Formats: sequence, C-alpha cells, structure tokens
Amino acid sequence: MPLTSAPEKLSPFRLGDWTTQQLANVEQALTRWVACPKDAPAPAGLGDAMRYAVLDGGKRLRPLLVLAACEAVGGNPQAALRAACAVELIHAYSLVHDDMPCMDNDVLRRGKPTVHVQFGEAQALLAGDALQALAFEFLTPDDDSVDAPTQARLCRMLAQAAGFQGMAGGQAIDLASVGLPLNSVQLHEMHRLKTGALLQASVMMGASCGPALAAVRDALRDYGAAVGLAFQVVDDILDVTADSATLGKTAGKDAAQDKPTFVSLMGLDASRHYAQELLARAFTSLSVIDASHDKGRHNTDALHALADMLVNRGH
Amino acid sequence: MPLTSAPEKLSPFRLGDWTTQQLANVEQALTRWVACPKDAPAPAGLGDAMRYAVLDGGKRLRPLLVLAACEAVGGNPQAALRAACAVELIHAYSLVHDDMPCMDNDVLRRGKPTVHVQFGEAQALLAGDALQALAFEFLTPDDDSVDAPTQARLCRMLAQAAGFQGMAGGQAIDLASVGLPLNSVQLHEMHRLKTGALLQASVMMGASCGPALAAVRDALRDYGAAVGLAFQVVDDILDVTADSATLGKTAGKDAAQDKPTFVSLMGLDASRHYAQELLARAFTSLSVIDASHDKGRHNTDALHALADMLVNRGH
Repeated sequence: MPLTSAPEKLSPFRLGDWTTQQLANVEQALTRWVACPKDAPAPAGLGDAMRYAVLDGGKRLRPLLVLAACEAVGGNPQAALRAACAVELIHAYSLVHDDMPCMDNDVLRRGKPTVHVQFGEAQALLAGDALQALAFEFLTPDDDSVDAPTQARLCRMLAQAAGFQGMAGGQAIDLASVGLPLNSVQLHEMHRLKTGALLQASVMMGASCGPALAAVRDALRDYGAAVGLAFQVVDDILDVTADSATLGKTAGKDAAQDKPTFVSLMGLDASRHYAQELLARAFTSLSVIDASHDKGRHNTDALHALADMLVNRGH
Repeated sequence: MPLTSAPEKLSPFRLGDWTTQQLANVEQALTRWVACPKDAPAPAGLGDAMRYAVLDGGKRLRPLLVLAACEAVGGNPQAALRAACAVELIHAYSLVHDDMPCMDNDVLRRGKPTVHVQFGEAQALLAGDALQALAFEFLTPDDDSVDAPTQARLCRMLAQAAGFQGMAGGQAIDLASVGLPLNSVQLHEMHRLKTGALLQASVMMGASCGPALAAVRDALRDYGAAVGLAFQVVDDILDVTADSATLGKTAGKDAAQDKPTFVSLMGLDASRHYAQELLARAFTSLSVIDASHDKGRHNTDALHALADMLVNRGH
C-alpha cells in the first residue's frame, strides 16, 4: 500500500475523465501535425518513421504535466497544447536515439519493434533529429494563437531542458557511468538531468503559458523536481518488479547492463519509501499554491492526481 | 575562368577584411557559448565532443551569409550573431550525425578524425543532439538584446529549415536514392532540402534581424535559393576535381558510393556552366535590392562577394 495518496476529494474516475479529454486533444494535435501537412509531407519514408515513433503509444506523462500546470495558473490552452506536443516530441526523439545499437541497443519499445529495427538505423537517426526540430516548430506558430514572448520563452525552456544542461547531459553521464559505482549524489545528478529536466520543464512550460506569482512558480518548480525524481525512482523499481509485457519494453535491462539505479544503490524497500517521500514533497509544494492569495485562479487537482498516478503506477 | 564574377567595386581584399572581422566575432561567440558556461559545463565528456565538432574548423559560410544579409537590411547585429552561431550549430550537428557509421561512415572531416572516431558513436549521437538543442538556446537569450518577436521568428525559420521539410527531409531522400537513377527534378528537390534549405534560411534569418520591404525579402529569398543550389553544384564538382587533403574530407566518395550528383547527371562542363548561371541569378536578385527605393539602407557588397567566393572556391 502506498504511504501517501491523493487527497480524498479526487476520485480516480475524475483523473480518468480529465486525462481522457486532455489526451484526445494531444493525440489529435500530434496526428494532425507530425510530419504530414498536406502541402509538403515528409519525404522518403521519414514521415512514417517519425509518426511511428510518436503516435499510438506512450503514457503522455509529459504532455499531461504541461496541461495540468497550465490549468493551475489559468494559462493559454493553445500555447499549452503546443508545449505539450513539443515536450512529447523531444521525449519521443530521445527514445528513438536511446534505443539505437550504439546506445542501449533495445529492440522493444511501447510493445512494438523499436524505430531502428522497423526502419533501419539511418532513418531512425534522421527521424529523431527531425522530431527535435519539429518540437521547436510546434512552439512557434506563425499566427497570433500564442504571443511572441511566450513562444520565445517556451523555446528557451525546452532547449535548455533537452540540451547539455538537461537531458543530453544526463545521458552522457549515464553513458560514462555504466559499471561504475555511483554514489547517491552522482546518481541524483544523473537523473536530475536525464529524465528530471524534461519532466520539470513540462511543469514549468505549462506554468509559463499563463501569469503566475513568483511564489507559485517556485512551488511548481519544486513540484516538478520532486515528480521528476520520483518518476525515475519508480522506473528503477519497475525495472526489477514488472515484466516486459507489462512495461512494453525490456524489463531487467538496467541490472543486465550493470547500470547504477536507485534500487541497486539503496535496495527495493528503501526505494519504494523514497518514492512516497518524494510524492509527499510534491503535495507539499502544491499546498503552497493552494494557500496562495489568488488561489481562486488556481486548480491544482490534476497536478495532485498526476503525481499520485505517476508514483503509484504499475508500468 | 569563371563566366561571372563579383562587380568591379569589390576587391577580394575587401571581402577578406570583412570576413576576418565577422569570423572573429563568430569564433569568439562559439568559443564562449558552446557547452562551457562557468556555472554548469556539459558533463561527462559531452562538452568536449560538442566543441570538437564546432570549433577550429569549417568555412563558416552559413554564419557569413546570415551576417551579410543582416547588413543588407541594416538589422540588429546581436540578433544576427546569435542566428549566425545557431545555423552553424545545426550545420555542425548534421555533419556529426551524417558521418556516423549508419549514415556515410566517414572518418575524416575538416582534416580531423570525425567525432564518432574520436569520441565513440554514442557520444557523437548525443553531441549532435545537444548541438541542435543549443542552436535554439542561442536564439532565445533571456535578456533584451533580441526582441521576443525576432527570437520566435528565428526559431521558426531554423526549425523549418532543419526539419522534415528541410535538411532532415533532404537527407532522407539522399538515403533512399543511393544507386537510383534520379532525374534532374528529383536531384534538385533533394538538394533544395538537404543543403539548400539551411543556406537559404541563413540568408532569410539574417534578413529577419531587421526591417525590410517585401520586395527586398523576396529578392533575398531568390538569392538564397540560387546560392544554396550553386553551393551543392560546386560541391559535386569539387568531389571529382579536388583531392582529400584540399577538401579536408574524403574526395570522390559520392562516385564511390554511387550517389547521384550534378556531375553524374549532366557532366563536369555543364555543371561548371550551371554553377556560373546560378551565380548570375544570385547577382540579378541582389540588383533588385540595389535598385529598391530605400537602397540607402542596403549594403549588398558582402552578399555579392560571398556568392562569388562560394561558387569560385577551390575547396
């Protein structure tokens, strides 16, 4: 049983309804926008590889965090939908490249053959590259649906979270640390960058789609950090407790590759306890927002429920 | 002897002076900004791979086109310098990925071992990914040196030029066309995307750093298209006429890999003639700008001289 769970007022059904509606918008936008405009679709199979990497799969945690954070500040939903899709494109490209033979050499992802298995290594490399570029195209529509300062700010946040001070930097640490006995500080730093940066950026980009007090922004930053770290701790737990069919990817591969994880560092029970501690920390951050002066504008229900779902998930 | 050359008023010396000064700014900016901020340098060797890919090499044609186009419209030099560096980062990342074993499998670039030879394939993949993200970070400084509409517009233009409707799309066509007898239309389309899109975007991004009449923008678009195509025609010529030491990369590899080129399609002499025709077309576009009503604000000297240098280069 989890030590912590979402406040009583949120029934799982309610999160389910919210998620269903948000995901319908996200899937529709991704289906319409990913590499298939009528005037100039992606050539030579590239569009197929890009869509294969993005559509019909994935938990869409990052888009949901963007949309929930936007809701918490009463932001521009059109900006948030674009930001939600953009972070998912960055996530999808990172998986395509991460699965390649020169990286993790994985053949199964979201229950399907990985992109390089399906389309070849060269096309997988290009598809990943094109998905990253497309993320920034999503953020900069040539109309007035998203104001220019928001467009520029979202690009800045996403670029930082994806680049050498974020995801790519974390992957470099990961690469260099296989077989090495990382200590707790080093393991935290790796995950803060590798997965935490983009999860935290999802929250902050959503928050950036609307006005918010500095205290609210700070609280959302803390929430994003806690949730980002908790996600990885849970991932490490599931890697040893769930099977490949449930995960939709190869289970047990961290141990097989002798990669340092929270479970290998602190053990399974302590890891589970740590995940719940982080969830409690996320809830504490949200309580700052709920108690803020302009709380009438803030609805943190979805952020609460997402954190709970993310930590207590089975896959 | 070239059929066309720059107008008499431009001496080679003058272009040399201009280039020296512009390149000093570009190199300084790249050296300072690529993955080595004092507070958080890129971890685990990633920064070394990124800097290796970008610094100490390259003709910097794209940055020079950005800066020359900005000069032609009297634009914001700080915006142009950031745009110049950003297009070079995109170019550099594309070379890193293009050289990898699953793509061209090349071991020599700019007279040095390629990034994957020097740092390993996984680090090369990450360095390319991080360089693309960094390009968008360059375009979105968190200060008032570049106004938000310009930041957003530059991101949009760069993302489109780099993505599936630009460079990545062209590379996918390239990949699919090895050993196939492309016709002239198909070869043009491949190069319009693969190298033309980023070269044209360099010109248009530079032009976008300042105000310009629609006619001037259109003329610069035509100039960029002509110069972008001419660049590739000359590249194909040099691939069969120059040696590896002069090129700083493996010569003759297109023919060895049975890749369609302008030379294989139309022959060497006709290719040379075509390059000069395209140069004349670029000059004609510039004459529209020179004749425009507000020509006092426009200085197309550098654009003239760059087109000439680009077509009549020996490497």
